[in-house]
Amino acid sequence: MSGIITLTTDFGLSDSYVGAMKGVILSINPEAKTIDVCHLISSQDIFGAAFILNSFYHYFPKGTIHLLVVDPEVGGKRRPILVETKDYYFIGPDNGVFSYIYEKENLGEVIHLTASQYFLPVISDTFHGRDIFAPIGAHLSLGVEPRWFGQAISDFVRFETPKTKLVDNFLEGCIIHIDRFGNLITNIAKDTFEEFVKGKRFIIEIKGNTVDRVSKGYSEISKGTLLVTFGSEQLLEVAISRGRASEALNSGRGEPIRVKLV
Amino acid sequence: MSGIITLTTDFGLSDSYVGAMKGVILSINPEAKTIDVCHLISSQDIFGAAFILNSFYHYFPKGTIHLLVVDPEVGGKRRPILVETKDYYFIGPDNGVFSYIYEKENLGEVIHLTASQYFLPVISDTFHGRDIFAPIGAHLSLGVEPRWFGQAISDFVRFETPKTKLVDNFLEGCIIHIDRFGNLITNIAKDTFEEFVKGKRFIIEIKGNTVDRVSKGYSEISKGTLLVTFGSEQLLEVAISRGRASEALNSGRGEPIRVKLV
Amino acid sequence: MSGIITLTTDFGLSDSYVGAMKGVILSINPEAKTIDVCHLISSQDIFGAAFILNSFYHYFPKGTIHLLVVDPEVGGKRRPILVETKDYYFIGPDNGVFSYIYEKENLGEVIHLTASQYFLPVISDTFHGRDIFAPIGAHLSLGVEPRWFGQAISDFVRFETPKTKLVDNFLEGCIIHIDRFGNLITNIAKDTFEEFVKGKRFIIEIKGNTVDRVSKGYSEISKGTLLVTFGSEQLLEVAISRGRASEALNSGRGEPIRVKLV
Repeated sequence: MSGIITLTTDFGLSDSYVGAMKGVILSINPEAKTIDVCHLISSQDIFGAAFILNSFYHYFPKGTIHLLVVDPEVGGKRRPILVETKDYYFIGPDNGVFSYIYEKENLGEVIHLTASQYFLPVISDTFHGRDIFAPIGAHLSLGVEPRWFGQAISDFVRFETPKTKLVDNFLEGCIIHIDRFGNLITNIAKDTFEEFVKGKRFIIEIKGNTVDRVSKGYSEISKGTLLVTFGSEQLLEVAISRGRASEALNSGRGEPIRVKLV
Repeated sequence: MSGIITLTTDFGLSDSYVGAMKGVILSINPEAKTIDVCHLISSQDIFGAAFILNSFYHYFPKGTIHLLVVDPEVGGKRRPILVETKDYYFIGPDNGVFSYIYEKENLGEVIHLTASQYFLPVISDTFHGRDIFAPIGAHLSLGVEPRWFGQAISDFVRFETPKTKLVDNFLEGCIIHIDRFGNLITNIAKDTFEEFVKGKRFIIEIKGNTVDRVSKGYSEISKGTLLVTFGSEQLLEVAISRGRASEALNSGRGEPIRVKLV
Repeated sequence: MSGIITLTTDFGLSDSYVGAMKGVILSINPEAKTIDVCHLISSQDIFGAAFILNSFYHYFPKGTIHLLVVDPEVGGKRRPILVETKDYYFIGPDNGVFSYIYEKENLGEVIHLTASQYFLPVISDTFHGRDIFAPIGAHLSLGVEPRWFGQAISDFVRFETPKTKLVDNFLEGCIIHIDRFGNLITNIAKDTFEEFVKGKRFIIEIKGNTVDRVSKGYSEISKGTLLVTFGSEQLLEVAISRGRASEALNSGRGEPIRVKLV
């Protein structure tokens, strides 16, 4: 146990929801380190939450507990769960937010959280982040065994994460995230790209625009020019040098992008 | 003393104001745990700040120090104060931000902060959060007795928090907060509602719309439908399933809401 | 070493970039205290970052490490550096963000960071905040000597910070920052102002408006009135009592402001 509990939610920053979760955690384990990751996941955007989680969790020390609360069906039938992997614990709603984790990590047990003695005494219908996930995370950080929190399940909810595909003789991917700078992040990994291109000449097409080389960072070509680069997660990313690609291309999540050999 | 100091302000997140407060606190007590709660209280919105404080403070461990800096009259005549209750300390301007605390908590002394040896050496006219509140909080977290910071006062500023009332034969409340999801939070507590309704049939009216049942969470009815539920603080809340009630109803703080028996 | 590492970036709050940096730091030094200062520096705004840094760094305890990541040329030729001063360490890109520090502080060595054994194993072209600056900060907080990270340089990039000047018989400064409240912060320090005015009558002109006295805080004159006051950094600041000067004056960074004796 690292004593570190990260917080990722769609609660925004203008309410006290995140503050209440921190209070609950610190009331149970005053030594816990609560670490804000992101509270501006688009409201109820489960895929967005899954993507964000996938891009940071592995940088934390072993034994870190990641709380992820994007929970449109709070108060309904979706289950609260704890996912154990080799190095980490993930706590949140069973709605698919952990799909990337299921795909990539060496899974231990997935526990349906039912042991209400570890919850807050009163469970609201609208805020399980505070009433269930925060206290479970805090008790876990104190060394309570995951299995004490409920029963292992195997029918947890997962969605298929978006994959690249070979269509005719091109590689097709899509935009899966737009970041703060307006950069369009695709699902085309550097490895996949290089294996397809094999050092040959190529063009990359997105929304009628083409680019024929991969830049190193955003600044080596002239201001205002469209470029592609491998971003921080080694995913192909479409950007405008010192500009905003999302606006210039009027493009969003799901937009296809193609790599062709020429 | 828990060593925990929470920070709630209207300073926003694009300046260094909050950072400077954290620096001051850590310079005096390097072991303090500064916890961000919310820095996006609407600019100079004293009631908003009071409501937010009321919704999180009690989740923190005993001995937590809550700093609340929404301070339109900084540099003027309003007094800086420290409010002691059975379990917590509150530090901020004497402008009514602690009105819910005065109403709900077992009050100890309210101290007018005058002992300038505990302030920063230079006091600006515009930023007592950094120059007075942060250093007082830090010294308090080190064990300095509240009375050393100034004199007890009894004429502190408080406003009447908005109450529900019985008008003819209906129960009337109002919207007191809009949260990040566009949910309209009212001042009608679950207890008050249930005592009024006593299991009978009812309708709830807001801005010409009616709802005749209380949902459990936001998701049990179809998308886009108006609903009411008891929110995280057990207050009646108006929401749109997977939508934004504040926009659909074009409604804001102060809007009346009525419960009628039918 | 205080173990405190502050984080100031233009990464925004809707991605996982800041979270990834915290994870990297805590993986190397689990005892580090990561402190969020500001992540909403305008995208790629080097001067804005320099100004923000200048307004908070000195409130932190000696031995604090300040990470500043506003880095439009990441992946290009700009160097990653560590700046040592009498009391603090600053880590970030060599693009001028430390210009105020160079001007004000007793400089120790400025190190070009090249010792890649202290970086993450894979260095992306787009995110040196995570891959270089965060791990260097964490190793530094563990006591690694700055000189182990690379070679001292003297040709680091610095810009001239905006100065006031005497033009004919008036003192001219300019707006250098707009804060969350719409207050216009100038580069006219209280000392400079008082030395110029020497107790005589004066008028202050900005965009055709004049003010003939300096207020104490924002509230002593009537709502909606233009005022000047000395702000939190003892810089002359233009504000509207309970309003937004930036909008009322339609004014931004660079706008000249003049003090004349009358």
